[in-house]
Amino acid sequence: MSTSPTPPAAWSGRFSEPVSEIVKRYTASIPFDYRLAEFDIQGSLAHAAMLHHVGVLSKEDLDSIQRGMAELLTEIRAGGFSWSLDKEDVHLNIEAALTAKIGDAGKRLHTGRSRNDQVATDIRLFLRDAIDRIVDGLRACQTSLVDLAEAHADTVMPGFTHLQVAQPVTFGHHLLAYFEMLARDAERMADCRRRVNRLPLGAAALAGTSYPIDRQFVADQLGFDAVCENSLDAVSDRDFAIEFTAAAALVMTHLSRLSEELILWMSPRFGFIDLADRFCTGSSIMPQKKNPDVPELVRGKTGRVNGHLVALLTLMKGQPLAYNKDNQEDKEPLFDTVDTLTDTLTIYADMLTGVTVKPDAMRAAVMQGFATATDLADYLVKKGVPFRDAHEVVARAVRAADSSGRDLAELSLDELQAFSTMIADDVYAVLTLEGSLAARNHFGGTAPVQVRAAIARARRRI
Amino acid sequence: MSTSPTPPAAWSGRFSEPVSEIVKRYTASIPFDYRLAEFDIQGSLAHAAMLHHVGVLSKEDLDSIQRGMAELLTEIRAGGFSWSLDKEDVHLNIEAALTAKIGDAGKRLHTGRSRNDQVATDIRLFLRDAIDRIVDGLRACQTSLVDLAEAHADTVMPGFTHLQVAQPVTFGHHLLAYFEMLARDAERMADCRRRVNRLPLGAAALAGTSYPIDRQFVADQLGFDAVCENSLDAVSDRDFAIEFTAAAALVMTHLSRLSEELILWMSPRFGFIDLADRFCTGSSIMPQKKNPDVPELVRGKTGRVNGHLVALLTLMKGQPLAYNKDNQEDKEPLFDTVDTLTDTLTIYADMLTGVTVKPDAMRAAVMQGFATATDLADYLVKKGVPFRDAHEVVARAVRAADSSGRDLAELSLDELQAFSTMIADDVYAVLTLEGSLAARNHFGGTAPVQVRAAIARARRRI
Amino acid sequence: MSTSPTPPAAWSGRFSEPVSEIVKRYTASIPFDYRLAEFDIQGSLAHAAMLHHVGVLSKEDLDSIQRGMAELLTEIRAGGFSWSLDKEDVHLNIEAALTAKIGDAGKRLHTGRSRNDQVATDIRLFLRDAIDRIVDGLRACQTSLVDLAEAHADTVMPGFTHLQVAQPVTFGHHLLAYFEMLARDAERMADCRRRVNRLPLGAAALAGTSYPIDRQFVADQLGFDAVCENSLDAVSDRDFAIEFTAAAALVMTHLSRLSEELILWMSPRFGFIDLADRFCTGSSIMPQKKNPDVPELVRGKTGRVNGHLVALLTLMKGQPLAYNKDNQEDKEPLFDTVDTLTDTLTIYADMLTGVTVKPDAMRAAVMQGFATATDLADYLVKKGVPFRDAHEVVARAVRAADSSGRDLAELSLDELQAFSTMIADDVYAVLTLEGSLAARNHFGGTAPVQVRAAIARARRRI
Amino acid sequence: MSTSPTPPAAWSGRFSEPVSEIVKRYTASIPFDYRLAEFDIQGSLAHAAMLHHVGVLSKEDLDSIQRGMAELLTEIRAGGFSWSLDKEDVHLNIEAALTAKIGDAGKRLHTGRSRNDQVATDIRLFLRDAIDRIVDGLRACQTSLVDLAEAHADTVMPGFTHLQVAQPVTFGHHLLAYFEMLARDAERMADCRRRVNRLPLGAAALAGTSYPIDRQFVADQLGFDAVCENSLDAVSDRDFAIEFTAAAALVMTHLSRLSEELILWMSPRFGFIDLADRFCTGSSIMPQKKNPDVPELVRGKTGRVNGHLVALLTLMKGQPLAYNKDNQEDKEPLFDTVDTLTDTLTIYADMLTGVTVKPDAMRAAVMQGFATATDLADYLVKKGVPFRDAHEVVARAVRAADSSGRDLAELSLDELQAFSTMIADDVYAVLTLEGSLAARNHFGGTAPVQVRAAIARARRRI
Repeated sequence: MSTSPTPPAAWSGRFSEPVSEIVKRYTASIPFDYRLAEFDIQGSLAHAAMLHHVGVLSKEDLDSIQRGMAELLTEIRAGGFSWSLDKEDVHLNIEAALTAKIGDAGKRLHTGRSRNDQVATDIRLFLRDAIDRIVDGLRACQTSLVDLAEAHADTVMPGFTHLQVAQPVTFGHHLLAYFEMLARDAERMADCRRRVNRLPLGAAALAGTSYPIDRQFVADQLGFDAVCENSLDAVSDRDFAIEFTAAAALVMTHLSRLSEELILWMSPRFGFIDLADRFCTGSSIMPQKKNPDVPELVRGKTGRVNGHLVALLTLMKGQPLAYNKDNQEDKEPLFDTVDTLTDTLTIYADMLTGVTVKPDAMRAAVMQGFATATDLADYLVKKGVPFRDAHEVVARAVRAADSSGRDLAELSLDELQAFSTMIADDVYAVLTLEGSLAARNHFGGTAPVQVRAAIARARRRI
Repeated sequence: MSTSPTPPAAWSGRFSEPVSEIVKRYTASIPFDYRLAEFDIQGSLAHAAMLHHVGVLSKEDLDSIQRGMAELLTEIRAGGFSWSLDKEDVHLNIEAALTAKIGDAGKRLHTGRSRNDQVATDIRLFLRDAIDRIVDGLRACQTSLVDLAEAHADTVMPGFTHLQVAQPVTFGHHLLAYFEMLARDAERMADCRRRVNRLPLGAAALAGTSYPIDRQFVADQLGFDAVCENSLDAVSDRDFAIEFTAAAALVMTHLSRLSEELILWMSPRFGFIDLADRFCTGSSIMPQKKNPDVPELVRGKTGRVNGHLVALLTLMKGQPLAYNKDNQEDKEPLFDTVDTLTDTLTIYADMLTGVTVKPDAMRAAVMQGFATATDLADYLVKKGVPFRDAHEVVARAVRAADSSGRDLAELSLDELQAFSTMIADDVYAVLTLEGSLAARNHFGGTAPVQVRAAIARARRRI
Repeated sequence: MSTSPTPPAAWSGRFSEPVSEIVKRYTASIPFDYRLAEFDIQGSLAHAAMLHHVGVLSKEDLDSIQRGMAELLTEIRAGGFSWSLDKEDVHLNIEAALTAKIGDAGKRLHTGRSRNDQVATDIRLFLRDAIDRIVDGLRACQTSLVDLAEAHADTVMPGFTHLQVAQPVTFGHHLLAYFEMLARDAERMADCRRRVNRLPLGAAALAGTSYPIDRQFVADQLGFDAVCENSLDAVSDRDFAIEFTAAAALVMTHLSRLSEELILWMSPRFGFIDLADRFCTGSSIMPQKKNPDVPELVRGKTGRVNGHLVALLTLMKGQPLAYNKDNQEDKEPLFDTVDTLTDTLTIYADMLTGVTVKPDAMRAAVMQGFATATDLADYLVKKGVPFRDAHEVVARAVRAADSSGRDLAELSLDELQAFSTMIADDVYAVLTLEGSLAARNHFGGTAPVQVRAAIARARRRI
Repeated sequence: MSTSPTPPAAWSGRFSEPVSEIVKRYTASIPFDYRLAEFDIQGSLAHAAMLHHVGVLSKEDLDSIQRGMAELLTEIRAGGFSWSLDKEDVHLNIEAALTAKIGDAGKRLHTGRSRNDQVATDIRLFLRDAIDRIVDGLRACQTSLVDLAEAHADTVMPGFTHLQVAQPVTFGHHLLAYFEMLARDAERMADCRRRVNRLPLGAAALAGTSYPIDRQFVADQLGFDAVCENSLDAVSDRDFAIEFTAAAALVMTHLSRLSEELILWMSPRFGFIDLADRFCTGSSIMPQKKNPDVPELVRGKTGRVNGHLVALLTLMKGQPLAYNKDNQEDKEPLFDTVDTLTDTLTIYADMLTGVTVKPDAMRAAVMQGFATATDLADYLVKKGVPFRDAHEVVARAVRAADSSGRDLAELSLDELQAFSTMIADDVYAVLTLEGSLAARNHFGGTAPVQVRAAIARARRRI
């Protein structure tokens, strides 16, 4: 990035000494906000069209601006644009390049606006686009989850609470829990998008402008749902960045939970699944290793997004109106959150298609933890025993079975009847895994028939 | 809170030694979750009604439960209920008290549910109620803001950027910026409420239950919008707590910004406002002091809510499904966030009605910073000077005026024309504060006529 | 807590209306700072002794203050003191009670100090005491770790990286890793204590006092290491609270890591350990469950302390000098951090003594992951093969063994030699677990002889 | 950065498909850890020297490695080294380049170590260096503060509490408060450095190595204070990164407070100071603006560092031993924290030398707030009035003076005596600013003589 001893052109008239080099670097945003270039041009074109529409800009000037911007956009996309640190930010870089190309018309573009409302518009356009890509990524992951769930709607695995075996569930049912989390994430992104998609342009520096601007015209051009109602709020509001990052932190939290499970399941003690080699790496010293790097990084990157959320909240705390330079610090956390999320969702959607499931290991695990104890209690309740008493009976039976190293189903009828005389021969039907699964046959339960119904609903919801 | 050496009744059958006293205290939630009592009873009554509806609970048992719960509710509201640490949590305390009152019917209440889905239901009922109160609080603050804005739709004050005088705005316009922030807060709370208001009950421990439950019946009884689709998700989801706390952090961020401004404005160097004595305190040592304690505390409490958000996000990071005891840590941050927010909003709505505005000090301040420099630039642009060139002209004029200690309006026409020959006698009209204000006459601008229109819209939106 | 319509006595002379009830509640700190009572009295006694020492307070007044304070301390310890919300905070409550007891001498106590330096002194005394208790707790945990490590200096278990089996380690070696973490924690607490243990008293409100105070005298009385050098800093500094909470967050992070492992190890798939029943709880619905509640809560409470750290950092961000009311928000996060840490350490030290280790399960697990593959590579290197080439050879051998479901040690010499002709009969010695362990025989390595040496050093370091 | 379809050489033997391109990008650390290159080479040279010292590496191989590394270092410093994404990280990039240069000796370098202990060593070397630079930066800022304080040891300004005028202080005294904060920061950095400066190398992957390594030899070569005691801890510990970032967050918190004050003081309502033009920027729309961008950014960047702290704490929460890929996420927050801090300190030290102080504005401000009211109370106490009664008397006098728009010193003796008959003619001496300042004549007080003494002490402490 080039620098020169000349002070920037946009505001130097009042100053008696140039900004020092380190200050220039410290205060410049061009090293990161160059990413907004396409959105900056979009916004400028809509602004220019409006200025012409209300009679402030001539047709010739508008034509020049449109032509110049088209050229710039081509250069930028081709990587041929030379960003300059002296010109501080993406706005001044583009405006200067435009003016170099088309002369005075370029200098007229900034009429009736300020960088304060301009940058707010750019970020909102950027974030709207990012949200749309993220929602696509969420849907792709949801599709991978449903596909895998469908293949394993009947595959029995231990349902854990406290990482202790609790009750049998199907692997498909387990996966659909994550479908629900991502479904809420998509809802939150859509809600957030409504608040992102409002036009700040026209607020100018903070108070509005003395030009007869038509903000609704600009909003229509740019596809905004509404116009920001108050100019001071329009230039200083960063709620959308915080709300988005909070929603992003929840997405990462969900994927960190799934990652934790993938890592556990791939650990040899569990051995429930294997991940495709292309998502794993080895060790520089231990030749036998195959490490689930991707889920580990996803788990780790959750901290990164949580950190960005804290950065943004801290940034805005106690800031007086209207725009303060502090706000420039909004971009890096926001950009990195978007990048982290889009990459993570892309990889996750693919990684889920590369999961090899090992039903035998899952079944072996569920046999090791009295997973049908609740079924025995329910059996007793259905015979008239109050639930709390039934619970006590089964607890004693489990203790006895445990001490002899057997499962409940391996106790003889005599042994079982020693704990309760209500127990009869039909008890063994409820003590099987399949019996236990099938019994949870209601909306949201793990009975395979319910899981299939849930999958059908899920496909309609994506 | 009473404790006894007897181990809790709900799960002790499998255990060979009682929980130690410090562990009992460490793991018990009753010291804080007693607050859920009313919601726990609501949920239990709906569950019992459903159990009877599907034929699992007799009419007699249901009657007993309803009668017992009514008595308990009266005792709890009167403060006469004795909570026991031995009974761990609000659920077991109430169930035990019910069983003591009505016998075996009490033991039957827990049929087909678990504490995992029970507590998830309780918190959602609690939070739904809290959100409704918070939205009321937001509206009360918005009303106070609009009332004050209306009284000062024309009161001129300096609009600041970077805490430097930027352009004149009206105090009413400034206040409406906060109206917009709180309006977004209310939107977010409403969005969050939709996701809170879904029924987890019926998920039982994690997999659903073998009883023929009717979850939609329970949802209807309790006014839930929907039923949670997946049992594993239903018991482990705490998204709603995080989403709510993130929305709450934004409310506090907004109020911290207003607080910062109130503190600044009340500082003698600004002297823009005074707060009513009832919101201030004095000093134990400096007899002259009148301190804006409430806004300072609001600013400080922002950290508290940000901290709770971090606590909740950290809590959920990397948790495997389904319920883990970690989740018990969700309640204290959530409760404290609700309390902080409701108190803060209540006080703020009142405090804003006790603000004394000092228009003379505001006007004096706006005269001290070349606030109409932008108007001079716009004046030149309208005469045909490209904006960037006009900006340079005015910057030089400001520098000259500053060096002689005068405002732009105090320069003679000759002096002004030395900077640009386009300047004529009509320039002095745009250099007045009132001229500057009136010129920003578009949707969202600070012209008093626009501020009044915004106030009218705001009243309709509350 | 009692309230009355009378405004507080300490600063009311300037005010025309009393503080409203909700504001009184919102701004009062007595609901939590009553905990500082003992330290407040300590500080007041030292201050009074100094005032007498420099001739500002008569011997009679000092005697009265000492007598009155002794009575108050007895009442407070006995729980017989009645705290009043009207008197805002612990300082005014105690001063008022003292004055009620001893008359005008009580009113003279506040000479030459302010609540600003008084509360800073109180918190530092509180925190110094807390740190000493926490260091004791850390040492108790370290002792439990070393005891358990000593019993298992030779017990082989799988060393994991990426939760994949990496190399054999001993369980004693594994436990000592946590010893090191807690050792650093104790160092950090000691470092923090030095900065806590400096006297702010004498800074008065912010600028010092016009009385001829002797701050070193007070520091000596109270056991402070030094006197704060600058009065403005003394009343506004809360670094010590932040530094302490950051150190506390690291303690919790360490214990959360150990908790994660205890939970994993107690999961039936691992089955490496069992926790004593007194640290576990059961399920209200699943009679077979024994849940590791304590480690789960410890893991969860990490978020709580991280949240407090964020709260305190946010609190101080951007505060102008000197004291602002925001600072009152320092106490609750600090108190809760202290409580969380002391309880957690107490329970952990005890819980570690109740761990039942299952060496057979550990050994079975280490056999399932080619744990000695690195040893084979090292064997080849010692025969002259460059490390990177040896790594490749072993990787191919592992792949072959894996495909036939065998460990490396189960391959025949012929089979092994197919991968490298450098392999001879002596290879089987390095492929045993014991051989692998014993080979890592250097400072910090897992060879049992090194583990025992580390244990001996550890005992000396506690 | 170049990529190729070939899988990485370091661990591919076990894998059947190459890592996908997006996974390669997602998991690679070379885009940021290339910064560790110099430290990686330092560590490798010490490791090689030790391998030779213990007889594992020949003299020839060592010579080759030293020669090859010297060439690589030159290339890297000159910017001529080509980093490859295929080679994952800085370690493999350098090792591959070395091997390309010197053949098999390069492959022997990794003997007896792993990337796990290698990267831990690199980061510690990096951070040790960064801390030393940061301590220099802190000292430079302290020097600037002391210089400015010395020039203004007598300059009177209002001391604020709650942003209300409290008591007169000198500007020099005020600045020294920040000196104290930075002094604590330097202490914390030094404490942290001790824990950073311990050698993890020799821990190998996690368990130590079967080579007869001499870890103390390596520690001596690299200037480490000690050797990490436990191999599992050595590879998984990231305490130092968290402790450092917490200390850094405090530095930023202190500078954010000073920044808040600079911004306030430069606001025209205060007008206490002006910042040199080279630290300010202008506006693209408002030609008159001179904005304190640097302090605003410093305030904003506090959030950034707080966020990194949260990221790192979240990262480590609940991670089982030993190394997990999550840990790779430690670098970016750490690097950015170091960069933010070093730049901020450099700029701040310079910016403080460019502060223009406006003593008249400070004096005018202190006259507007009854700053000597405490002095009047102290005057009465010295005449025998109990402090609490004196406080009441002055509060009433302030109220009366305020209602007639006068300062206390402007009340006549008759008027003053109406509040207390103890007031005599000598009262006016204590009501002057200079009298008030001079009276606070004790260690840490604002009396100019004390400020000069504090400055002398400060110079000795830097």
